[in-house]
Amino acid sequence: MQPNTPQWSEKEKQIAREALSKAYDKETEALIVEITKKASQITIIDDIWSLNDYLNSKRYDLDGKYDYRESTPLFVLAQLIKEGWLHPDDLASLTPDKRAKIAALAKM
Amino acid sequence: MQPNTPQWSEKEKQIAREALSKAYDKETEALIVEITKKASQITIIDDIWSLNDYLNSKRYDLDGKYDYRESTPLFVLAQLIKEGWLHPDDLASLTPDKRAKIAALAKM
Repeated sequence: MQPNTPQWSEKEKQIAREALSKAYDKETEALIVEITKKASQITIIDDIWSLNDYLNSKRYDLDGKYDYRESTPLFVLAQLIKEGWLHPDDLASLTPDKRAKIAALAKM
Repeated sequence: MQPNTPQWSEKEKQIAREALSKAYDKETEALIVEITKKASQITIIDDIWSLNDYLNSKRYDLDGKYDYRESTPLFVLAQLIKEGWLHPDDLASLTPDKRAKIAALAKM
């Protein structure tokens, strides 16, 4: 079941993609700051392997989250709002019903 | 064929293990310095993923190299000398024939 796909206009799909791209930039910029800080605190080899594990995990997480699929933009956008990488205002151009659904999902 | 195993006394095995341990400490200390430097130069997300790839590769390399097996100490010790993590003097207590074999392997 893909209830949302037919209801997204090309313009709205573009808005969703741009919002994802904006969130990706914010999240990866925060990751760069975080990793640089973690790396500056490395003192033993286990710190290196912990950093390695963390990077593998973040990569898996980001690759999955930003893999835009037209069947799921509501869920992805809601997740990004919940995590703070998007603001509801970034989606101001979407129809009110979509914004309401995204807001509801973000509260779950 | 494991031609070397029977010829290694317990004392010599201990020397080999201690040499490996010493080389491991040196190599991992150098890795910490290298990673800290690389991390301080990160500016874009691709630098993060490059660091992640590099760490995965180094971990695989180190896990394999320092997995002491009694069938292969000559090769491991020779490799570590070739790479500069061990000095031939670290193996001064081994028998002359073993030291000669290791020196020959290290030149290959």
